[in-house]
Amino acid sequence: EILEFARQFDPQPFHLDEAAARASLFGGLIASGWHTGAMVMRMVCEGFVPGTATSGALGFDDLKWLKPVRPGDVLSVEAVVREKLEPRRPDRGIVKIENRVHNQRGEVVMSLVSLVIFWRRPAGS
Amino acid sequence: EILEFARQFDPQPFHLDEAAARASLFGGLIASGWHTGAMVMRMVCEGFVPGTATSGALGFDDLKWLKPVRPGDVLSVEAVVREKLEPRRPDRGIVKIENRVHNQRGEVVMSLVSLVIFWRRPAGS
Repeated sequence: EILEFARQFDPQPFHLDEAAARASLFGGLIASGWHTGAMVMRMVCEGFVPGTATSGALGFDDLKWLKPVRPGDVLSVEAVVREKLEPRRPDRGIVKIENRVHNQRGEVVMSLVSLVIFWRRPAGS
Repeated sequence: EILEFARQFDPQPFHLDEAAARASLFGGLIASGWHTGAMVMRMVCEGFVPGTATSGALGFDDLKWLKPVRPGDVLSVEAVVREKLEPRRPDRGIVKIENRVHNQRGEVVMSLVSLVIFWRRPAGS
């Protein structure tokens, strides 16, 4: 999956070729950071979105790729609500959610703060 | 491609299903923002990385999905060097690069500021 994603979207040697990756800064094959982000989105879709009134994200701040993600790593995502922003429109609001992505050794491999749109209940309900 | 990416990484109705997308905030099918980001990475790999001494990115700031990306849209990426950061190590440095993604109507659909690692020339060379 790492190689397939890299061929399609991020064809840099350290994502594509084991020997070139060993000679790189990373010392071995690593997943594209965009692949890790896309996998996080899938986990968010399965574990967070269902049952909420979210309707998409505006963007995010402060994305950090902190540790390499390597073949065989097992990732999990933690979501912490950080802030509620004044809604632009009365029927929706923005929530800032910090996501931290851990590997199987408990290391944080990636973090980001998402700005997510949520529908609001009608006033008085 | 929009549907395929969404099925694998971002299975939300407005990325997956034309009828559900029409009923959503977006009024029709739109690409996952992570898909747009991954396509940007591919364009950066083909149009920017070759011939440079980059060796990966640390992360980025202030990613905004400003306009929907829809089936048939044609995207291009503009990269502007914004800042050179003090290197942590003498052999490499960090450059902040602002990327703006335009569609075929010249609208900016996404922007972000990447922190990219570059190798430095040996002192005196």
